[in-house]
Amino acid sequence: MYIALDAMGGDNAPLSNVKGAILFAKECKQNIGIYLVGDKSKLEKLLKKYGGEDLPIEIVNAEEVVEMDEPPSNVIRKKKKSSMYIAAKLVREGKAQAFVTAGNTGAAMAASKFIVGAAPGIERPGIAVAFPTKKEKPTVLIDVGANVDCRPRHLVYFAVMGHTYIKEILKTNDNPKVGILSIGEEEGKGNELVKETYPLLKMTKLNFVGNAEGRDIFTGDFDVIVCDGFVGNIVLKTSESLGTVIVEMIKKEVKKSIISTIGALLMLPALKRFKKKADYKEYGGAPLLGTKGACIITHGSADAKTIKNALKVSLEFVETNFNDKLKNNLETLLPEELKKIREEEYGL
Amino acid sequence: MYIALDAMGGDNAPLSNVKGAILFAKECKQNIGIYLVGDKSKLEKLLKKYGGEDLPIEIVNAEEVVEMDEPPSNVIRKKKKSSMYIAAKLVREGKAQAFVTAGNTGAAMAASKFIVGAAPGIERPGIAVAFPTKKEKPTVLIDVGANVDCRPRHLVYFAVMGHTYIKEILKTNDNPKVGILSIGEEEGKGNELVKETYPLLKMTKLNFVGNAEGRDIFTGDFDVIVCDGFVGNIVLKTSESLGTVIVEMIKKEVKKSIISTIGALLMLPALKRFKKKADYKEYGGAPLLGTKGACIITHGSADAKTIKNALKVSLEFVETNFNDKLKNNLETLLPEELKKIREEEYGL
Repeated sequence: MYIALDAMGGDNAPLSNVKGAILFAKECKQNIGIYLVGDKSKLEKLLKKYGGEDLPIEIVNAEEVVEMDEPPSNVIRKKKKSSMYIAAKLVREGKAQAFVTAGNTGAAMAASKFIVGAAPGIERPGIAVAFPTKKEKPTVLIDVGANVDCRPRHLVYFAVMGHTYIKEILKTNDNPKVGILSIGEEEGKGNELVKETYPLLKMTKLNFVGNAEGRDIFTGDFDVIVCDGFVGNIVLKTSESLGTVIVEMIKKEVKKSIISTIGALLMLPALKRFKKKADYKEYGGAPLLGTKGACIITHGSADAKTIKNALKVSLEFVETNFNDKLKNNLETLLPEELKKIREEEYGL
Repeated sequence: MYIALDAMGGDNAPLSNVKGAILFAKECKQNIGIYLVGDKSKLEKLLKKYGGEDLPIEIVNAEEVVEMDEPPSNVIRKKKKSSMYIAAKLVREGKAQAFVTAGNTGAAMAASKFIVGAAPGIERPGIAVAFPTKKEKPTVLIDVGANVDCRPRHLVYFAVMGHTYIKEILKTNDNPKVGILSIGEEEGKGNELVKETYPLLKMTKLNFVGNAEGRDIFTGDFDVIVCDGFVGNIVLKTSESLGTVIVEMIKKEVKKSIISTIGALLMLPALKRFKKKADYKEYGGAPLLGTKGACIITHGSADAKTIKNALKVSLEFVETNFNDKLKNNLETLLPEELKKIREEEYGL
């Protein structure tokens, strides 16, 4: 088995990526190869410098890099020689079983969706993000950006994907509680999409508990919350940004007095523990569920440990046979109406 | 002029509401009457106790209360004797010019929309919330829940409402920068609604600067960001909840050590200043723009000062002739296409 790692993606690439690959290869007990995709001469030097020469790490040259701030569509249109494109293509071609990147998130979504592509029988892969909650277990929001306009059945598929992710990978609940993101608790509240999806979700064999509101993302009362990728992406970016702004605003106020500054210093270890818990990269990054093999998009600011974790999670997806379990769940959990649509479309 | 105050709405009602009304009446230099709507005997006692007897405050009896956790639709369907219903009706009937409530937010939206009703020439009132940003000036998000499914022209009207709110009431920018909430910066990114609204916004005479992403709500780079009420409501509730959860999670970590606890105590004044800046109730609450008179929905946890601020803001709306300015802006800023629709619908 091989994992294709985009060695040039991320704020600390390629250094952290190479170090992360080395950490992973040293810790990993199975025989897993890593394709380190990127600037060959740079990667060779780094591998040598950090003692990765005799590990099962193979360099695949890529001349271009998708920058963190360029339009996501560039990866599929303009930069076919980029490390991200080539790493994704290795999975598409079956040469690798997992694709891991810390690069431009939008581009990573596009690469996973259009280059790696959907697994057989999956209409629309969805990106899942595990949000930290009050309850020491995450809530998975899906989709956070791979599918902008969705039909009701897509949200039902996302629910099954989220269910499978919680059950097989995060293992935080054996019978995950599933909700649909809306603007009121009662059935009948929401936009057209929600109103049409609600009865379908009720018909599934999922543990569907009804509408979730924005506030429920962080309470831990739900294991999975589904929404279309437009809403999910806005929620994700709003939350990330609010976290940062709150910290900045507090820092600004703290700096106005010496006493507060001392207070902040005394609090530092607690703040660091909080930061670690609050960061979704602690869960190894965001997987694009329902693609061929496994696609893991991790944080742009990933350090070596984060890259190692993302590689581990990608391995877990492959070893668990996540896609088989997902397909099986789609067959056993969906209502007859949706199974018929799937049969017609995929001959399943 | 009269302001109708829902005296029974809010976590601290009726005490804070009565105190807030008294504070307002004492500070206000104009001849403004307040209708204090709620349980007559309770309100009489409180008014007497806190020295509000000789102020221009008139009690209007209401036998019922819309509770904070009941379905919003109850205010219009089941509780026509509630303080919220009766206060809103005073504006509808022209007996008061402004409606202020700290009650159940969903019910307050329903009361503003269906009982007070839209101002002549306004198709869809929208709720505006001023979010705190890094730049010591707010970003107004509109609509945050009054209109679940929207057509492109509604978002354009919201943009004009937000523009007018910034310019006439918050006064933080004379030529407000307007954006549309989406999931990528470039034109062409977004869901169907965004893609159809973008060219319309470009045709207006507003200072339209393009797509805003979730993260832009808190940067202060935009003065107004428009979205449909479904997305806006989810963003609002997600943000409120995330703020609370972050504080709770930090507290939990802090309590694990005495040193951190001392640190937190030293930081307390800074944290309080931050909390004040971060709370949108500091801007006097969220107005429902485009209704008859003025409708101000303030925070459920409103104390006397917050109620006073909300009353002041409602007065400002009336004194500024906000609705006239809004109508004027709709006439001067909209593109011809939308003006024609408005002419046909309203004979304007």
